[in-house]
Amino acid sequence: MLIVKKFGGTSVGSPERIMNVAIRCVEDFKKGHDVVVVLSAMGKTTDELIELAHKVNPKPPKRELDMLMTTGEQISVAMMAMAMDSLGVRAVSLNAYQVAMHTTSRYGNARLKRIDSDRIRHELEDHKIVIVTGFQGINKYDDYTTLGRGGSDTTAVALAAALHADACEIYTDVDGVYTCDPRIVKSARKLKEITYDEMLELATLGAGVLHNRSVEMAKKYGVTLVVRSSLNYSEGTLVKEDTKVERMLISGVAVDKNADRISVIGLKDQPGVAFRLFDVLAKANVNVDMILQSIGRDGTKDISFTCDDGAIDDAIKALEANKERLGYKSLDTLEDVAKVSIVGAGMMSHPGVAAKMFEALYNAGININMISTSEIRVTVLIREKEAERAAEAIHDLFDLGD
Amino acid sequence: MLIVKKFGGTSVGSPERIMNVAIRCVEDFKKGHDVVVVLSAMGKTTDELIELAHKVNPKPPKRELDMLMTTGEQISVAMMAMAMDSLGVRAVSLNAYQVAMHTTSRYGNARLKRIDSDRIRHELEDHKIVIVTGFQGINKYDDYTTLGRGGSDTTAVALAAALHADACEIYTDVDGVYTCDPRIVKSARKLKEITYDEMLELATLGAGVLHNRSVEMAKKYGVTLVVRSSLNYSEGTLVKEDTKVERMLISGVAVDKNADRISVIGLKDQPGVAFRLFDVLAKANVNVDMILQSIGRDGTKDISFTCDDGAIDDAIKALEANKERLGYKSLDTLEDVAKVSIVGAGMMSHPGVAAKMFEALYNAGININMISTSEIRVTVLIREKEAERAAEAIHDLFDLGD
Repeated sequence: MLIVKKFGGTSVGSPERIMNVAIRCVEDFKKGHDVVVVLSAMGKTTDELIELAHKVNPKPPKRELDMLMTTGEQISVAMMAMAMDSLGVRAVSLNAYQVAMHTTSRYGNARLKRIDSDRIRHELEDHKIVIVTGFQGINKYDDYTTLGRGGSDTTAVALAAALHADACEIYTDVDGVYTCDPRIVKSARKLKEITYDEMLELATLGAGVLHNRSVEMAKKYGVTLVVRSSLNYSEGTLVKEDTKVERMLISGVAVDKNADRISVIGLKDQPGVAFRLFDVLAKANVNVDMILQSIGRDGTKDISFTCDDGAIDDAIKALEANKERLGYKSLDTLEDVAKVSIVGAGMMSHPGVAAKMFEALYNAGININMISTSEIRVTVLIREKEAERAAEAIHDLFDLGD
Repeated sequence: MLIVKKFGGTSVGSPERIMNVAIRCVEDFKKGHDVVVVLSAMGKTTDELIELAHKVNPKPPKRELDMLMTTGEQISVAMMAMAMDSLGVRAVSLNAYQVAMHTTSRYGNARLKRIDSDRIRHELEDHKIVIVTGFQGINKYDDYTTLGRGGSDTTAVALAAALHADACEIYTDVDGVYTCDPRIVKSARKLKEITYDEMLELATLGAGVLHNRSVEMAKKYGVTLVVRSSLNYSEGTLVKEDTKVERMLISGVAVDKNADRISVIGLKDQPGVAFRLFDVLAKANVNVDMILQSIGRDGTKDISFTCDDGAIDDAIKALEANKERLGYKSLDTLEDVAKVSIVGAGMMSHPGVAAKMFEALYNAGININMISTSEIRVTVLIREKEAERAAEAIHDLFDLGD
């Protein structure tokens, strides 16, 4: 069996943790498996390197920033190979060049294009554990690139696809994907499996343990992922294609407290109003999430949207600076709000799922501020202090617990 | 003009120092020169990485140690490119792969075989300052190698040769090569130039600011070196082929206090004795420098040698453990000794140079313990506390001062 195992920065944050990961990988190797390990930079290395860069240049060129940052994973993989050697196992570390991991040219946020698997296969045939730098690639100029957020997960999935691996294990500090955050809902249950689409919705909602791009890639190449803990031997959660005929109505409840709501009141009810509004926000670098537009009345309408906690000041500043151009009457903001979502591939074929969620909230006496839906998700905006209670009520009514 | 400039770890030891070096390089660039900069790792980075490695493996595999260490120079060059960018100058950093610097396979102590100059030439034509990682290369397996001590100097010289550079400037914390250490002899004078061979003798004597391998390579390819300070704009010392018909008798006086002497008394005067003796020392990792063997008398002879201060305990231990096998009567050690040498290409054609040195020592009432010579060097072993006085006396009699 060929296994790709990916460990994040926290899992390799110190020499001791590197030894622990080495021991774990060597166990699989000694069972006769081919093992390919993908690593992030140790602990806070990447942040420290960025800080160092800013000491000579407040806006470092991205090409050079990538040149600097890619040293982080190279340190991790060399350390890991040394740790495995000290356990008496032959291992070899490879960086983006040595593999070769070809990406698009864009520094700081490149996309993987093609992975040469020759060197890795050769080393595996030579009975070595192969340790590969995550997060990095090389572009057509022979320059280092980095893959942006969640990059090491993407490297692992891409390697699993290129090598036709039998398993792709993503190690994190939680032991799988739960029906809800166990800190919020005590009866939350670890899911044995979840579909790619469900995982994508959860990742988008900030509840995910995997980055979107890695899940998208896994879906595209049909790579079954296992999300599991680097701290214990619990089985984890499979992320895979939907294969069940009968499946659960919903897989989980996600809570995201990192939201504020702004309502723009009294906009003229005419074409181009929404475009101008969100153009102003985009230029102010405000990421807008849920959007709700009221039906026009008396020639005016209201538009409400949510954004991240940190962005509300920028949003208000941008809107006030453009008040005349946008032509609205007033702004109404609601901080301390939370998004609570249900996600489930089952809801596509079952009507009434949203209604059941609203029923749970009604029973708990919780008022809904905004509603947004996708094919396999329903999200409501409620007061932040009611978020836990809402999640519990929904979790109970859908009978998701143990 | 194409200039190769090499800066060591101390010169790039902090973001501030990196900015200073960047300013200096940009000055030359703005004069219209093509500038290639070779850098070592920042400050103590290499030592810190080795320390980190030892935390997971007391004997790390050399291939992985090189993989780890080469991140040090990559950090330096990326930082330097960012610093130059902040000065408004386009710069590009390149590591051993990107250049490509081909070396022999031997990890930890590889030799440069061939440098591809295409990428560097391309970047120079594109009006960029090119910043290259010193000390590192890649071997035929596509693995990183390091060049061992003085490696960055060697990289700079090799690049200067490959690019047919007009100048190769080696920046250090002293502003050139002196007739003697100015801390020892106040009237010591900076040399305008010195031959490769003289520089090689000085390097071997520990007085040199350049490593042997880089001087050997400069000699082989006829690269004229300039040794100068990164702290001031003083002209420095040229290291070049001997072109003068008439030249100074000697170029300088070198003092090395890092020596101890051991005499092995009463060895049998028969073949194989010296071999067994130095074999025992080699196996104990004792580096032997000067060797003197007395003429045999009464069937026995004495062998004296010098070694580094730090090695004398190991040497005595090894000799005592093998007393029976080596068959000597007793050991006599002399700590607190110093080597004082005169170096000069001129002495090859001038008899009496050694005699003049001995005259200076006789006038100063200094006793000579051992003598060793090469074609362009005479070294004497004397008491350490007399070293300064000896150097001064020799310096004066040869009229080397200002």
